[in-house]
Amino acid sequence: MSLIAFIGTGIMGAPMAANLARHGHEVRAWNRTRGKAEALAAQGVLVAGSAAEATQGADIAILMVSTGDVADAVLFGPGGIVATLSPGAIVVVMSSIPVDTSRAQAARLAALGIDYVDAPVSGGERGAIAATLSIMAGGDGAVIERLRPIFAAMGRTTHVGPVGSGQLAKLANQLIVGVTIGAVAEALLLAEAGGADVVAVRDALIGGFADSTILRQHGERMIQGNFVPGGHAEVQLKDLRTGRAVADAAGITLPFQRLAERLYADMVADGRPLLDHSALYLTLKDRMRG
Amino acid sequence: MSLIAFIGTGIMGAPMAANLARHGHEVRAWNRTRGKAEALAAQGVLVAGSAAEATQGADIAILMVSTGDVADAVLFGPGGIVATLSPGAIVVVMSSIPVDTSRAQAARLAALGIDYVDAPVSGGERGAIAATLSIMAGGDGAVIERLRPIFAAMGRTTHVGPVGSGQLAKLANQLIVGVTIGAVAEALLLAEAGGADVVAVRDALIGGFADSTILRQHGERMIQGNFVPGGHAEVQLKDLRTGRAVADAAGITLPFQRLAERLYADMVADGRPLLDHSALYLTLKDRMRG
Repeated sequence: MSLIAFIGTGIMGAPMAANLARHGHEVRAWNRTRGKAEALAAQGVLVAGSAAEATQGADIAILMVSTGDVADAVLFGPGGIVATLSPGAIVVVMSSIPVDTSRAQAARLAALGIDYVDAPVSGGERGAIAATLSIMAGGDGAVIERLRPIFAAMGRTTHVGPVGSGQLAKLANQLIVGVTIGAVAEALLLAEAGGADVVAVRDALIGGFADSTILRQHGERMIQGNFVPGGHAEVQLKDLRTGRAVADAAGITLPFQRLAERLYADMVADGRPLLDHSALYLTLKDRMRG
Repeated sequence: MSLIAFIGTGIMGAPMAANLARHGHEVRAWNRTRGKAEALAAQGVLVAGSAAEATQGADIAILMVSTGDVADAVLFGPGGIVATLSPGAIVVVMSSIPVDTSRAQAARLAALGIDYVDAPVSGGERGAIAATLSIMAGGDGAVIERLRPIFAAMGRTTHVGPVGSGQLAKLANQLIVGVTIGAVAEALLLAEAGGADVVAVRDALIGGFADSTILRQHGERMIQGNFVPGGHAEVQLKDLRTGRAVADAAGITLPFQRLAERLYADMVADGRPLLDHSALYLTLKDRMRG
């Protein structure tokens, strides 16, 4: 059984670490705000006093921190875990961070004999708790095979390509989610403007070609006016911007991505950064006349 | 048991009429090209020599013709069935036609004591054959209740509002389908441009928030380069234009709808009107550089 260091036990990280412990893995957790890690002790997770202490002797270090910069600091900053990890260890960054940051981290660690996998997730807090996350893993196939028993405690894993590909898959996911929310919102607004019963229209569309998780979950939110996150609009905007940076770097233009980025920026400007991204419905409705 | 006249036995209408007969309904079919109706005789459908002959004494007349103008001609033109239908009969237009055309047909028939329901479908030829169509029915609730045993032979029915609402639901469906195809296409192009394995990326996204029938069916078409229709691009464009006309009439602007209309127009201009709508992928790819 591997010793796993788990860095970052926030809304997502805490249930993920708990699920690892529940599956019999030895998990040593650290969080900047110690209270969030302490709560895990009752679930069989050892709580460390520092990131370096958590990673001492660990075979695998999982990072579930807020940004690429924070991941860089945890790895390479003062007290960074790169000093305590041994050659042959594996760093797994499960945060959503820029593709280039993932690739740079992998390169620095490779020089020290440390393997690296980027493995961002989709499925939200609910998926983290239920261990039904979709884990998009980028890196060496053999390394990802070694991680499968670990990932299995948290969700379903797909190997999507070399390092950085997990992040690309996550950006692809966010592009689809952001645009599909817009499509569902406009479809409901159109049906309502024409005088149809929008609740029934949504019911009718479920099961047909227009069916999607967004129609089912976020379409219901739009009808109920329930925009408690869920997924924050400002995070959706950040992910669309990160995706556009990848498109820019590749010299390509993707028009639906561009439009979605502009509309979520409007939504944030309208004072809705912390509503669920499905509240794009409100921004489209506000702006559809004129 | 009702006597049903079925007008228009093309790719969709033929299996729908056959399913009605299979469920024990008495079906009298007529098609402009008689050969298409003749083929149904072996499946228990009576073949009439004219639309008027098909509707003589019928309780219900179902129209599954190509356009609103053709439906108008069948109903009210020379030899139109309005002359043979009795008060108390029900006209059911299952074609996708403009909302205003449906409402005008309903009003003219109401003056003659004939009920009217617009009930366009989603699910394509496959759904028509398997009797798994999604039927979006607009009209009076009591009339739609009387039709339920008929509709049950063809698929699943939802009452989506007053006359015209079936057409609105279909337009909402086509808006979501058209935009989601664009979102999936761009997500795959982005992942590919960044160097990920797009087959694996699509697999990873299935089951998460980005999941949709479009990701599953049309995403696979994009990866395989299989653009045999399915749903023609030119029909997708027509439906988006009809939807935009509804938005214009209501004085609203829906930006994803607008963008989709422009891009499918590009696709048709690029010489792809008869490919499956998922071939928008090719147009986005052609145009993404520059």
